[in-house]
Amino acid sequence: MEFAKTVEAARRQAGAWKTEGCTIGLVPTMGYLHDGHASLIRRAAADNDKVVVSVFVNPMQFGVSEDLAEYPRDIERDGDVCRQNGVHLLFSPDAGELYPDGFCSFVDMSGLTDALCGRSRPALFRGVCTVVAKLFHIIQPHTAYFGQKDAQQLAIIRRMTADLNLPVNIVGCPVVREPDGLALSSRNKHLNPAERKAALCLSAGLAEGRRLLENGETDVRRIKAAVRAPMEAEPLARVDYAELVDADGMRPAAAAHRPLLCAAAVFIGATRLIDNFILDAE
Amino acid sequence: MEFAKTVEAARRQAGAWKTEGCTIGLVPTMGYLHDGHASLIRRAAADNDKVVVSVFVNPMQFGVSEDLAEYPRDIERDGDVCRQNGVHLLFSPDAGELYPDGFCSFVDMSGLTDALCGRSRPALFRGVCTVVAKLFHIIQPHTAYFGQKDAQQLAIIRRMTADLNLPVNIVGCPVVREPDGLALSSRNKHLNPAERKAALCLSAGLAEGRRLLENGETDVRRIKAAVRAPMEAEPLARVDYAELVDADGMRPAAAAHRPLLCAAAVFIGATRLIDNFILDAE
Repeated sequence: MEFAKTVEAARRQAGAWKTEGCTIGLVPTMGYLHDGHASLIRRAAADNDKVVVSVFVNPMQFGVSEDLAEYPRDIERDGDVCRQNGVHLLFSPDAGELYPDGFCSFVDMSGLTDALCGRSRPALFRGVCTVVAKLFHIIQPHTAYFGQKDAQQLAIIRRMTADLNLPVNIVGCPVVREPDGLALSSRNKHLNPAERKAALCLSAGLAEGRRLLENGETDVRRIKAAVRAPMEAEPLARVDYAELVDADGMRPAAAAHRPLLCAAAVFIGATRLIDNFILDAE
Repeated sequence: MEFAKTVEAARRQAGAWKTEGCTIGLVPTMGYLHDGHASLIRRAAADNDKVVVSVFVNPMQFGVSEDLAEYPRDIERDGDVCRQNGVHLLFSPDAGELYPDGFCSFVDMSGLTDALCGRSRPALFRGVCTVVAKLFHIIQPHTAYFGQKDAQQLAIIRRMTADLNLPVNIVGCPVVREPDGLALSSRNKHLNPAERKAALCLSAGLAEGRRLLENGETDVRRIKAAVRAPMEAEPLARVDYAELVDADGMRPAAAAHRPLLCAAAVFIGATRLIDNFILDAE
């Protein structure tokens, strides 16, 4: 496995592979890799000759009051996860390498970014779009892999890629969960034992919403209330949102809409967690 | 010479050339090509194996009250200019091809876009950055060529390209002028004979500003007043701005600053014209 800390080194290595005719799969991450990331990496390794993983805790996507400083980091362990799962290049630039003095450009969009996580975290998607565009320009992958757990992010990256004619295929991969249902997230590390138990209210609420929908419930308010109920009943939890939206446009949707995204975010203590499910067209 | 009206066709042709190992030079234009454009094309032809010219009157960079509908168009003549100057591919998509239904992404920046033309035309540089990024993604040129007449646009495209790690070299080419000093512009077509004569107040003002600077004048207000004087004396003219800024950051600059951009914009009747000069470091 190769390592690159600079744009120049990453570009040179990826460019050399492209010149050799290799296909490249890119898995952009903020590090502290878990089995969700590993599933993306293995998918990229199955699809491509070379796999590049980027590890970069992107300051541009954190608001001033958010958890940039506390975001978990462990580049040694990330290196092990990458090596064990068939990564060929680990690109881990520091913030000054991607945002040098005088940096002032950004990629953003209107509409899709206003709902759900974008409403709660106004800086988030401008930061995501900008850093993903940069990574696409540096690595020039054939395909890039993103987790469905960040459903709005995935929809936004698909939209950006199409709108800006970026020559990259976007692949979304299923949410990976703990045996008890909690979606894997680097932020789960912050949960103490009581919070870890309380966090199940999120997947439990979503499971209840899915059950209602699959049983033919059509009243959006009733479905949202069912999603919220376990979270509102949990003393350590504070609901950020629970919404039903169309999975492409992120606009409020009827229960019969397909593909339908049901997404929720909750604070467990100081830790914000998200989860969702999508009902696809039959 | 090849023609492409769709993203897919342009991408396929440029991609085939890249696979053959050809270097590609891109000249993005809004059409109604004049000798200024021709100078960019000839430079691109001298530097590259293949030259791509895009002709696209970009609706995203026009404000609602601006001259999108009146912007001059003549794709037949543009084809002749391209053929005569060694172009290999003329890419002329329509608006729906570059901005299909649901399009909502954009590229923009803070700071550089607030001064000069960006202050007068708030939609301008978001539109320019977005369409240039799209063209870079579609054609994937090695080098792209822009006129120094649009000095702020050139600085912004350099900045965007660096900030977003776009793998494209940016080359700026000198302003091309009529024998009497008027900078070539597609918008000059709108000038009636009296306005055409009046328009010389712009290059005359800038020439006077340059004379003062080269003679050691250091008072910015006095220099700006000298640039404005011929425009203010012209009954058909209305000054939009006359400014001295640093040529990289577009911030108000002392007369001794190098590289110094002296830029002005003026309405001649309903037609807005721009011009500038740069004093480089010795």
